[in-house]
Amino acid sequence: MIDKLIEKIEKTHAPIVVGLDPMMSYIPGHIQQKAFAEYGETLEGAAEAIWQFNKEIVDNTFDLIPAVKPQIAMYEQFGIPGLQAFKKTVDYCHEKGLVVIGDIKRGDIGSTSAAYAAGHIGTVKVGSKTYMPFSEDFVTVNPYLGTDGVKPFVDVCREEKKGLFILVKTSNPSSGEFQDRLIDGRPLYELVGEKVAEWGADCMGERYSYIGAVVGATYPEMGKVLRKIMPKSFILVPGYGAQGGKGADLAHFFNEDGLGAIVNSSRGIIAAYKQEEYAKFGEEHFAEASRAAVEAMQKDIESALANRN
Amino acid sequence: MIDKLIEKIEKTHAPIVVGLDPMMSYIPGHIQQKAFAEYGETLEGAAEAIWQFNKEIVDNTFDLIPAVKPQIAMYEQFGIPGLQAFKKTVDYCHEKGLVVIGDIKRGDIGSTSAAYAAGHIGTVKVGSKTYMPFSEDFVTVNPYLGTDGVKPFVDVCREEKKGLFILVKTSNPSSGEFQDRLIDGRPLYELVGEKVAEWGADCMGERYSYIGAVVGATYPEMGKVLRKIMPKSFILVPGYGAQGGKGADLAHFFNEDGLGAIVNSSRGIIAAYKQEEYAKFGEEHFAEASRAAVEAMQKDIESALANRN
Repeated sequence: MIDKLIEKIEKTHAPIVVGLDPMMSYIPGHIQQKAFAEYGETLEGAAEAIWQFNKEIVDNTFDLIPAVKPQIAMYEQFGIPGLQAFKKTVDYCHEKGLVVIGDIKRGDIGSTSAAYAAGHIGTVKVGSKTYMPFSEDFVTVNPYLGTDGVKPFVDVCREEKKGLFILVKTSNPSSGEFQDRLIDGRPLYELVGEKVAEWGADCMGERYSYIGAVVGATYPEMGKVLRKIMPKSFILVPGYGAQGGKGADLAHFFNEDGLGAIVNSSRGIIAAYKQEEYAKFGEEHFAEASRAAVEAMQKDIESALANRN
Repeated sequence: MIDKLIEKIEKTHAPIVVGLDPMMSYIPGHIQQKAFAEYGETLEGAAEAIWQFNKEIVDNTFDLIPAVKPQIAMYEQFGIPGLQAFKKTVDYCHEKGLVVIGDIKRGDIGSTSAAYAAGHIGTVKVGSKTYMPFSEDFVTVNPYLGTDGVKPFVDVCREEKKGLFILVKTSNPSSGEFQDRLIDGRPLYELVGEKVAEWGADCMGERYSYIGAVVGATYPEMGKVLRKIMPKSFILVPGYGAQGGKGADLAHFFNEDGLGAIVNSSRGIIAAYKQEEYAKFGEEHFAEASRAAVEAMQKDIESALANRN
């Protein structure tokens, strides 16, 4: 799957992933009203609004981008109907040829991680039959439990040719509270980064490993160091745009080959119509605003890569 | 909710939580066959088998125990139908008066953690209506992202009188890989434990905080230290039984008042009929074997507490 991701990045010239993290406040009134008219002000109504919102954004951006990253929490908060909208979104993005990164941040003891891995990127057996319940292409994983909590995900990746992005240095303001603490003079995130490289070593695609890392755009200097520690790992970079990361900061996350990173933007794209810059599209044409925001992001990153030292 | 949990522990004399972590291999053949006859060898069939298995165990143990802890991964692996069985289990346990600890180990950046908290222990708004999608009483939370990833859960706990158990030192063999690393001479798990005490300080029930911690039974010496670092936090102790933790090891997790800890057993109870000791019950009467295993566990812990130094 890492090979497919790279192929699509090279074809689109866009190391970009659109974060499908729909908050109700992002969804234009006309979509909400239509969904509520059909399903009432229910969890089903909320799920329908999310799905219609996603569909229109995907329809307007799929040819420009290699991948999407639905954040499962935004669906899970609406219970079972919300998770049905998640699944529907994953399936629809696959139909459109997109790589799907499930932002699930799971991680547990071995047997439990194995269950998450089976459900999200692998298969489960029921009697004599086999199913792929959520069937994302990549998932994000939390490393706090150490190797035996991550290994079951890695094993499924090897079998199914799927991939992971393991949390190394997250984009949020207090990520340093534990992740930056020094251990024998080096921050914890570097030790986690070394483990990512180790876990990924026997799980290689053509040029990069199936096992990648998450490093926030908000910490470019740390990205520079981590880039060297995990040379064969793709880095998923959240925090661009709304969280404060800028194009110029991103160059350090890429390798000399121009690959090795994929930058996520969620709010900055899916709620672009709420920004002054894209207000001209109006709420009705929110998905065209998203398309324009993707094009601007693509140019920003391309020029950052062209101008790097 | 911590007050209700304590009240129920005192009434049952059992600081015990039954882990409802059904693997298909635990579920007796007759339950699977009946479910598959009705729903086919489908995800719905697997979910029905899980639900019937859980129901029989709950019916046979609910009067002996204060709480259950369904591990959501075991449901999520069967996709949407699996999660429907999770929700059905939560609701049924509530009907039976049990406290429900959702073992979800979620944790993300602020806005995303807020969505998980709303969906699992809080409420979501849809138009003018309000819903409680999963409505567990407690959930487990991963601290790797630091304060701003945990705070949204704490805020919901305060509003809704719900509770958390935050991963501090997990029960699995490789938990030490990151959690035991020394920072200024002290292991990371101690720093996390201090934060748990801090997060819980302004979120107090009558005797204990709403904010507790997870510390594995497999690490009793560390439990002793953490008990002192977080005197007002309840400790959820996994790893008893099948993972190797013994009653005598558990005394250190409790305070002088005989409270402060609740011990989980999953496989040791729900699959008790597979152990030699309980084989006499037979597969048909698996839930009676579970009841006998709860009774034995209760005695083991009671005697460990009575004989502690």
